[in-house]
Amino acid sequence: MIRATVWGENVHEHTNAIVGELYPDGLHGCIAAALNAAGGIAATTATLQEPEHGLSAARLAETDVLLWWGHCAHGDVQDEVVERVAEAVWGGMGLILLHSSHFSKIFKRLMGTPCNLTWREAGERERLWVTSRGHPIARGLPDHFELEHEEMYGEPFGVPEPLETVFVSWFQGGEVFRSGLTWRRGAGNVFYFRPGHETYPTFHDANVQTVLANAVRWAHNPAPRLTAVGDAPNVPVHKAPEKIEERGPKLHSHGEEGFR
Amino acid sequence: MIRATVWGENVHEHTNAIVGELYPDGLHGCIAAALNAAGGIAATTATLQEPEHGLSAARLAETDVLLWWGHCAHGDVQDEVVERVAEAVWGGMGLILLHSSHFSKIFKRLMGTPCNLTWREAGERERLWVTSRGHPIARGLPDHFELEHEEMYGEPFGVPEPLETVFVSWFQGGEVFRSGLTWRRGAGNVFYFRPGHETYPTFHDANVQTVLANAVRWAHNPAPRLTAVGDAPNVPVHKAPEKIEERGPKLHSHGEEGFR
Amino acid sequence: MIRATVWGENVHEHTNAIVGELYPDGLHGCIAAALNAAGGIAATTATLQEPEHGLSAARLAETDVLLWWGHCAHGDVQDEVVERVAEAVWGGMGLILLHSSHFSKIFKRLMGTPCNLTWREAGERERLWVTSRGHPIARGLPDHFELEHEEMYGEPFGVPEPLETVFVSWFQGGEVFRSGLTWRRGAGNVFYFRPGHETYPTFHDANVQTVLANAVRWAHNPAPRLTAVGDAPNVPVHKAPEKIEERGPKLHSHGEEGFR
Amino acid sequence: MIRATVWGENVHEHTNAIVGELYPDGLHGCIAAALNAAGGIAATTATLQEPEHGLSAARLAETDVLLWWGHCAHGDVQDEVVERVAEAVWGGMGLILLHSSHFSKIFKRLMGTPCNLTWREAGERERLWVTSRGHPIARGLPDHFELEHEEMYGEPFGVPEPLETVFVSWFQGGEVFRSGLTWRRGAGNVFYFRPGHETYPTFHDANVQTVLANAVRWAHNPAPRLTAVGDAPNVPVHKAPEKIEERGPKLHSHGEEGFR
Repeated sequence: MIRATVWGENVHEHTNAIVGELYPDGLHGCIAAALNAAGGIAATTATLQEPEHGLSAARLAETDVLLWWGHCAHGDVQDEVVERVAEAVWGGMGLILLHSSHFSKIFKRLMGTPCNLTWREAGERERLWVTSRGHPIARGLPDHFELEHEEMYGEPFGVPEPLETVFVSWFQGGEVFRSGLTWRRGAGNVFYFRPGHETYPTFHDANVQTVLANAVRWAHNPAPRLTAVGDAPNVPVHKAPEKIEERGPKLHSHGEEGFR
Repeated sequence: MIRATVWGENVHEHTNAIVGELYPDGLHGCIAAALNAAGGIAATTATLQEPEHGLSAARLAETDVLLWWGHCAHGDVQDEVVERVAEAVWGGMGLILLHSSHFSKIFKRLMGTPCNLTWREAGERERLWVTSRGHPIARGLPDHFELEHEEMYGEPFGVPEPLETVFVSWFQGGEVFRSGLTWRRGAGNVFYFRPGHETYPTFHDANVQTVLANAVRWAHNPAPRLTAVGDAPNVPVHKAPEKIEERGPKLHSHGEEGFR
Repeated sequence: MIRATVWGENVHEHTNAIVGELYPDGLHGCIAAALNAAGGIAATTATLQEPEHGLSAARLAETDVLLWWGHCAHGDVQDEVVERVAEAVWGGMGLILLHSSHFSKIFKRLMGTPCNLTWREAGERERLWVTSRGHPIARGLPDHFELEHEEMYGEPFGVPEPLETVFVSWFQGGEVFRSGLTWRRGAGNVFYFRPGHETYPTFHDANVQTVLANAVRWAHNPAPRLTAVGDAPNVPVHKAPEKIEERGPKLHSHGEEGFR
Repeated sequence: MIRATVWGENVHEHTNAIVGELYPDGLHGCIAAALNAAGGIAATTATLQEPEHGLSAARLAETDVLLWWGHCAHGDVQDEVVERVAEAVWGGMGLILLHSSHFSKIFKRLMGTPCNLTWREAGERERLWVTSRGHPIARGLPDHFELEHEEMYGEPFGVPEPLETVFVSWFQGGEVFRSGLTWRRGAGNVFYFRPGHETYPTFHDANVQTVLANAVRWAHNPAPRLTAVGDAPNVPVHKAPEKIEERGPKLHSHGEEGFR
């Protein structure tokens, strides 16, 4: 079983009647239920309001893949937790960013770019096209599928060139967007998936649920979590793989740590 | 003329006799002189000790390509200046990171990874191999060249997969390193180049100087600097490229800013 | 001056009245004229009907960037010429493939994939979005531009993951397409640009002409053309960069060529 | 169980005494035995001398991952079989190319480049470094491992930029090589692994065997094999996802095939 943790900001579910009705168990609850029904995945949830946002070191150590949905409270996520999640990703935890999480601290932290885009909330039609036939994340999908009501996100999307472009979206209002992109950061697989505005029933859509379950399986790195992901070990002369003699001037004393 | 600014930490030049003798005008001074002699490049310098580290908004606006050498004082670079440099890169300024700058705040900021490696200061031989024949950064170089004394950096190098691998280094002690890597961040071209330990005459080496001048020309984006690189503009319904009707529930009021 | 050669299949211009009226000098003639007007580019033409399709070794040696437009006569291009063009690209010649050239022999040869797509000829509206802000190929363009009548090409596009995605197209009929993609093959820069169906005035469009001139400048590799691009030289023991002794069993005799 | 087919050229095993002694069951037999011992993989063999080189359509349909070792008889592989293998890869079959297979027809076909390199047969030491920590192909390996006797392959390696660089080799004689590279072609995962000269016991090495089993698991695409991988279907106006009217001049008649 792949252990997935679905992180939800969990705010609009309680402050907006439409969102509350669409997602009585929270967006995170809806997503976790879909993953648990997909087979081979054991999904639980964590939210902003829990201590350490529900993402303690112990919890991350037991998470194979983390899904992230945030929107209005990006700024409330503690920097310390963001850094902890980043280290988990570098060590091999998968990370799936959903919709408005393009502006989450963790996504911007891992991309090194602004992650911006254009947007419009008009309930327009979105059509997602598979651009990478046979990609594991697109498994079982038709060559395209529609979401009758979605928020528009438009290009340019301020992210680094991805490893792979899996989906591109067409919008009724005339825009396009690279809706499914993959990257690798350290040993961690990262996937951004565009749909998921909280006032629409997107996470109840069967195709969207297929994408999420596929993405969890794809993002899962079965290797043991790496530790010391940021270390820069000195390899002294006597431990060099080939025998060499030390020579020339030196800046560092023996056994000294490098500068950071 | 491409306007290059060579940023130097400028510490060991004054605290270590060997470094001071090798680089009486600073590593930055040596590099700038080489660039100025290369043709088509007007290089000046900036240092940690200057107000705003010599990297005011005005200075960055006049910089086409920034070269960065830092080592023992990474932590002294103000976060505000790092963010300013990042925005300039996203807007189109080229950035070239040299040697120990793998651990500079700006490089880690743009990569989203730890940027770590293994190392050994033993004055061993390094041999750089061109892995991308005909790449502009390798122009005029032989298929490989040697630096008789260098610090060793070893894999794994904790960076995202690059767009291109231009050089790979062989070390006498048995390690290898991807010594020349390119990325793009926003409109800015980014190049990391490995050699350049301050106790060796690396920046006096003709091949190294060729690489640096080539890299400046490659990194130069002649388009006007982009502004508002992080904006996420709303495109209201009446400005949608295709005529649409607003429909469905809404979270945002008209004219409202998006959440960040 | 960058020396561009615009290669045209030059068939429908003479067999289809609409095409002939739109492009009295051929599509290649129209494109070459636009490039010559752009500044810094000296463009000439070559066509299928000329000896060696106008692409002799001497001609390719004098070509910095080759633009290719073909459609109904892909199969008439001699394999020998295709291989010659491929070698020129590996050696550093830029190559720009236009529209229906996705099925040209040379593009399939360089991609190693089927290069297929879906299509519809209905004169529908295409809107190209810049996905890579500040990319040299998008220089001077608005964030999107329209072609009122174009043939539709739809995803999935059967090509390898590109180095960069520069444009994505929206189509009135509901499809999307990655319309501007870059790759590198050897020392040669390769760019595919989608628009350009021969029954529409696409190559008279100012934005399209801007893209083509930008692409020629981007694709130009100023380094001398590489020769012997397919050689696999033996490096005998006495020429190894480090002194080694030959040891162990051997398959090859001294001075023998490797197997191919 | 992942179904792996190990293809061996099977020539030097019978014509060279050293190879015959090292690999009494052929290199392919040795590799298949190692894969079968690894767990979760059912490996069989196929050779050049069998009808259709043992790679009939039926055989490929039952192959999840194909491993390929060839050297002196690249030219004897029928083009028809090469094309059949390419189509299987595009449809989702994994492909792992070993050592001298860099010059195999199938690898050059899929890369679109010469795939050349430099070489020396001197029994020198090779040390492979993991450059992508935590990559599935490096699972269970130390950060580096050695092969005391190997043929040297040196950069530049004439291949397109990979998706990922997993290993880089150090050679005693002073060269380096990107020894483990990944690409995707259609739905198929492709991995090139450098070691494996037939006069050395490389395929008996435990670390090499670990790499091969890891690579088979990584290359395995569990989705059903795609068919019609090269089709370019017309989407007529009445089947367009959005309602449109046909307009403007046309080149194609209704129902006509596109040009190829």
